[in-house]
Amino acid sequence: MNDFSRLCVHTMTTKPWSLTEAIDAYAKAGVPAITVWRQHITPMGLEAAAKALRESGLRVTSLCRGGFFPAISEAGRQTAIDDNRRAVDEAAAIGAPLIVLVCGAVPGRPLEEGRRHILDGIAAVLPHAQAAGVKLGIEPLHPVYADSRSAVNTLKTANDMAETLASPWVGVTVDVYHLWWDPDLEREIARAGKNILSFHVCDWRTPTRDILNDRGLMGEGCINIRQIRRWVTRAGFEGDIEVEIFSDEHWAEDQTQYLERIKTAYLNRV
Amino acid sequence: MNDFSRLCVHTMTTKPWSLTEAIDAYAKAGVPAITVWRQHITPMGLEAAAKALRESGLRVTSLCRGGFFPAISEAGRQTAIDDNRRAVDEAAAIGAPLIVLVCGAVPGRPLEEGRRHILDGIAAVLPHAQAAGVKLGIEPLHPVYADSRSAVNTLKTANDMAETLASPWVGVTVDVYHLWWDPDLEREIARAGKNILSFHVCDWRTPTRDILNDRGLMGEGCINIRQIRRWVTRAGFEGDIEVEIFSDEHWAEDQTQYLERIKTAYLNRV
Repeated sequence: MNDFSRLCVHTMTTKPWSLTEAIDAYAKAGVPAITVWRQHITPMGLEAAAKALRESGLRVTSLCRGGFFPAISEAGRQTAIDDNRRAVDEAAAIGAPLIVLVCGAVPGRPLEEGRRHILDGIAAVLPHAQAAGVKLGIEPLHPVYADSRSAVNTLKTANDMAETLASPWVGVTVDVYHLWWDPDLEREIARAGKNILSFHVCDWRTPTRDILNDRGLMGEGCINIRQIRRWVTRAGFEGDIEVEIFSDEHWAEDQTQYLERIKTAYLNRV
Repeated sequence: MNDFSRLCVHTMTTKPWSLTEAIDAYAKAGVPAITVWRQHITPMGLEAAAKALRESGLRVTSLCRGGFFPAISEAGRQTAIDDNRRAVDEAAAIGAPLIVLVCGAVPGRPLEEGRRHILDGIAAVLPHAQAAGVKLGIEPLHPVYADSRSAVNTLKTANDMAETLASPWVGVTVDVYHLWWDPDLEREIARAGKNILSFHVCDWRTPTRDILNDRGLMGEGCINIRQIRRWVTRAGFEGDIEVEIFSDEHWAEDQTQYLERIKTAYLNRV
């Protein structure tokens, strides 16, 4: 009943904290795992971040985020590939076995074109990822982000891509926020099976006051998180359960108290 | 090049105008068709609205909106069915051959349950609609509205429902705003074929500043409207092309000038 062994918190969930503060607070609160966002590494530098994480005893679940492959120009697409290779190096340095890919989209360009750029981009990064021992998780984003953040908007599309790339180093990330509405979700989770590399939870608020930064703590919204967790479990997923919440409201609160509420919500609602 | 013969404007597009003002302005601007929202009928009353529309010479494309069938209680579902029957009477009174259904969703209730309520609700309203000579258009809404506005979030789901109900009085409404992101859209439009009862256009802004009321005028966003129009045309649709834009920004503008910009955008971007 008090099993936090699979609980992971994203540094973006407690965005006001520096990486050092997040590491200390998670460790103190008995949160065993952390997903690190790159912008929380930058201020302290990669080496110091890697050292702090290593010494903390926290398990690093993943690095967020790679992706953003589509671009108008060849040069733009190469820049994205180079940046993803750097992300692989960062993931390896901090001991993250996985990079989550927010795949990208160029406003006004066809989504099919974006998906080709994404496939090509992942294929280009893949040898480097494999050599570094880092997996790549294709995260479908909610269709509300199809204009500018991701041309991959259903688990079906992500599954198609993972199957096309057919590498043990590429899989999918299931995030309840992005996928809960999909009538095909149960089937596509079953299809993904062992390709599910990570699992993100939060909630969908009614009303949602801001498209980017008004996610809910589990229980604050309408998502049947338990049902999706059962589907993911049935598909064979046994990894960490990652709390990823972008919320201006929650970021404005005392983060230590908020972390305790996250733990409670994790026990009661996931 | 100046063919406005299929142009229809929704009264909600020029929301600040009363129905009388909208009728006068559309007629003066050479907009031949109007879709009437029920809240624009209420202030003047149904009889007066019907008379004004009849005398205007405008073609009434549809009545917006019916739907909102899901409810926790049996009584709530019956209330919705009764209200939809009244909408049928209103549509018949103003000479609208179609009611567009925003199907509804109850936050926190399973979407599958909502879809059952929707199917049952439409089936319950159907005899009355048929008797009145009014068709019912199932409009899939963007997944961003799955929490509280519609459990029908893809054209596939709407097509499934229309095929299940198998009546010439039930079909689907294709709105580019709700469907543009869907990787299956071309296929599902072809599948819908003659079941396409109406076609709505506007645009998706980047960034979208408000989930409800920040739609763009055609050309202000990222949707390839022409491509979707081609698909709809290929499916056999020859009806009006309806401009439905909810926009705090555009509602704050001079509506007469805005209507001229709508006409220009219709010619250049649809």
